[in-house]
Amino acid sequence: MNAKDMLGRVGLVTVEEARKAFDAAFTMPALSTEKVCVTTSLRRVLAADVNALSPLPAFARSSMDGYAAAAAGTFGATDSMPAYLSVAGEVAMGEEAITPLAKGQAVRISTGGMLPPGADAVVMLEHTQMLDKETVEVMKPVAPGDNVVQAGDDVQAGDTLLAKGHRIRPQDMGALAGIGVTKVEVYTRPRVAIINTGNEIVEASAEPEPGQVRDINSYNLAGLVEQAGGEPVTLGIFRDEYDAISSAVEKGLGDSDIVAITGGSSVGTRDLTAKVISDIGGPGVLVHGVSVRPGKPVIIGLAGGKPVFGLPGHPVAVTVSFELFIGPLIKRLSGEVDPLGIAGIPPMRVVRARMTRNYSSAQGREDHLRVSLELVEGELWARPILGKSGLITTLVRAHGTVVIQLSKLGLEKGEWVDVRLFD
Amino acid sequence: MNAKDMLGRVGLVTVEEARKAFDAAFTMPALSTEKVCVTTSLRRVLAADVNALSPLPAFARSSMDGYAAAAAGTFGATDSMPAYLSVAGEVAMGEEAITPLAKGQAVRISTGGMLPPGADAVVMLEHTQMLDKETVEVMKPVAPGDNVVQAGDDVQAGDTLLAKGHRIRPQDMGALAGIGVTKVEVYTRPRVAIINTGNEIVEASAEPEPGQVRDINSYNLAGLVEQAGGEPVTLGIFRDEYDAISSAVEKGLGDSDIVAITGGSSVGTRDLTAKVISDIGGPGVLVHGVSVRPGKPVIIGLAGGKPVFGLPGHPVAVTVSFELFIGPLIKRLSGEVDPLGIAGIPPMRVVRARMTRNYSSAQGREDHLRVSLELVEGELWARPILGKSGLITTLVRAHGTVVIQLSKLGLEKGEWVDVRLFD
Repeated sequence: MNAKDMLGRVGLVTVEEARKAFDAAFTMPALSTEKVCVTTSLRRVLAADVNALSPLPAFARSSMDGYAAAAAGTFGATDSMPAYLSVAGEVAMGEEAITPLAKGQAVRISTGGMLPPGADAVVMLEHTQMLDKETVEVMKPVAPGDNVVQAGDDVQAGDTLLAKGHRIRPQDMGALAGIGVTKVEVYTRPRVAIINTGNEIVEASAEPEPGQVRDINSYNLAGLVEQAGGEPVTLGIFRDEYDAISSAVEKGLGDSDIVAITGGSSVGTRDLTAKVISDIGGPGVLVHGVSVRPGKPVIIGLAGGKPVFGLPGHPVAVTVSFELFIGPLIKRLSGEVDPLGIAGIPPMRVVRARMTRNYSSAQGREDHLRVSLELVEGELWARPILGKSGLITTLVRAHGTVVIQLSKLGLEKGEWVDVRLFD
Repeated sequence: MNAKDMLGRVGLVTVEEARKAFDAAFTMPALSTEKVCVTTSLRRVLAADVNALSPLPAFARSSMDGYAAAAAGTFGATDSMPAYLSVAGEVAMGEEAITPLAKGQAVRISTGGMLPPGADAVVMLEHTQMLDKETVEVMKPVAPGDNVVQAGDDVQAGDTLLAKGHRIRPQDMGALAGIGVTKVEVYTRPRVAIINTGNEIVEASAEPEPGQVRDINSYNLAGLVEQAGGEPVTLGIFRDEYDAISSAVEKGLGDSDIVAITGGSSVGTRDLTAKVISDIGGPGVLVHGVSVRPGKPVIIGLAGGKPVFGLPGHPVAVTVSFELFIGPLIKRLSGEVDPLGIAGIPPMRVVRARMTRNYSSAQGREDHLRVSLELVEGELWARPILGKSGLITTLVRAHGTVVIQLSKLGLEKGEWVDVRLFD
């Protein structure tokens, strides 16, 4: 028997090829939506354009404390030759300024106050001086529109304030409130069913018997899904048996958008997972093994048109496979149209650091190296965290990841690298 | 009357000076804590070290599929001169491997399986061949420990897995589950009371009368607080009257860690806010005006030892003041000890881009310029978004901020700048 066949490595493909194979077979489903309050809408993605029904502001407002007046009455004013305006009271905040200004008149106005008819500018307080109770001296002229926010300056009626596919930020919440929108239609968060398989796996709350270990991957995966904007649906721990895995996957497909199976790092389990995905079909396994370290034995398939991932059981391989394939897919299924992503800006923080030591990369595989960061005399250094990919603490001790391309043989001590920081 | 006094600009200080004045007067309170399930612990900050009670794994495990054996029995093995081992069955996953291996014996083992007594290494499947049902040929020697995760390799009993002050990431959730910790003691999220003042402000759900505008700032602030890891407590809209603001601040001080008052951009309101803070005392107003644009009229104080901020009413000024003062304070009150922050890595994504045009900076003020990003022929450009700081849409259209230091007069077209991206 050919060892390569036995290990399921026939058809090992690059990350790029794996993505292409998936994209060629995958059809974006219609995304479901829900209504949420703007107060709970942070980071949600709009499922429809939000248009303004009325202008913001609805009337001309002062952007300064001072005197509202007709600008023409201030033309030519200087310190030595001020213009004189008669003060016809004060604009009350929050009330309609109804009384029109006569020629040569001004009214006191505070920031945000409504300009009365006949006023087209505001003279700043700093450029005025009260001569007596009824007269103000203006030392500097204003042009029409000076220190005024015009009706519709912020948003015109009919304007699209925010477009479909936009992810809501704090300022967007403010703007939505400003135009009177308190509920928005957003896409539901992509649901990711998490299935952990393995006869040796017990619940985190259990006391393992000899030979047993607690579930690590469901928790790590649930955190990764949540961080990526998805909703984790943890289905539990299942025995390495065809029927158990098959019914778990069916359940996952029933009420989730993506199914992630983890735990099987042995050949037998991987084969079982692949068989389950293939037997459900539509179209089944697309990729079985990717040239990446760690994470090589990842299985990518579609069952009934929904993405199903068979992730290696090693915790670090779970994280790498997630970052490469599941995270980007969650983003896609979130409906977000990301203008920064389009500009090629990575979705995570990236810092430059220098390698503290040489590192030999895996031959013919895209290598995802965990590193911790150290600040030495003002310079940032990346220290490789070595250790088997089965050790979750190699991830815990790391601050981020350095990706070494397939073609590169390794990194040299002192070499500058881009470190993608864990969030 | 001196215009400078009238506008409350006496003692205008730099951002740095404002921070120092605050730090000199502020005493970190004892932080409260709560227990949460690990499944809901993402981004929460540990209030106590988490130590492992038992080693992880609790026993030596195989990290490969293959044959567990005494390494000594494979020494010198080659393709042409293989070592022969007799196969004494298979280790069942999740069960204790009790039967000791006799000399010259091996057992089939899957990844994650428990090593039986007498075995100290695992020969990879790829380096073996079954000769007959009972005998396996080993083509490559292994050293003791090869392809084995030893007991305690991940975590030793008594080890501190995660330290107090650590913010929980997905891999930490996995590791916690791995050592059987399903609940963790975390700091409660800093609560920020949000008070909007202004006779002209109405609820977002209301239909404003002429002269009125809807509440924008409470929503923007609530989003900013949430994004920074705090818990927004929106107290509502209050009239520009001493008693109304005073009782709202007292309420905020009662059940929150920070009070943020917004809405008052007029001199009268600012004076009122300052008076309320001073009258409560302990010690009252520390800073009244900071040399920053926009956001200059910010008031920073302590009332009963708790931070109280009087933010300008202009939406953009609210965001800038928040980023400068409230966000960092929320982080401090979250209890987080951030090793990346210590290394000087900014908490947000930062990209380099070139200015699309000249920009004159505000004289003598740290200028926070909003920009949108454009990708032109593979190069990233930052386009200044001009417009009054009272316009929320200048923030909506922006992708990030360029901070221009006090000493700098402006930016030139084509100049490279660091853009701090909105999250």
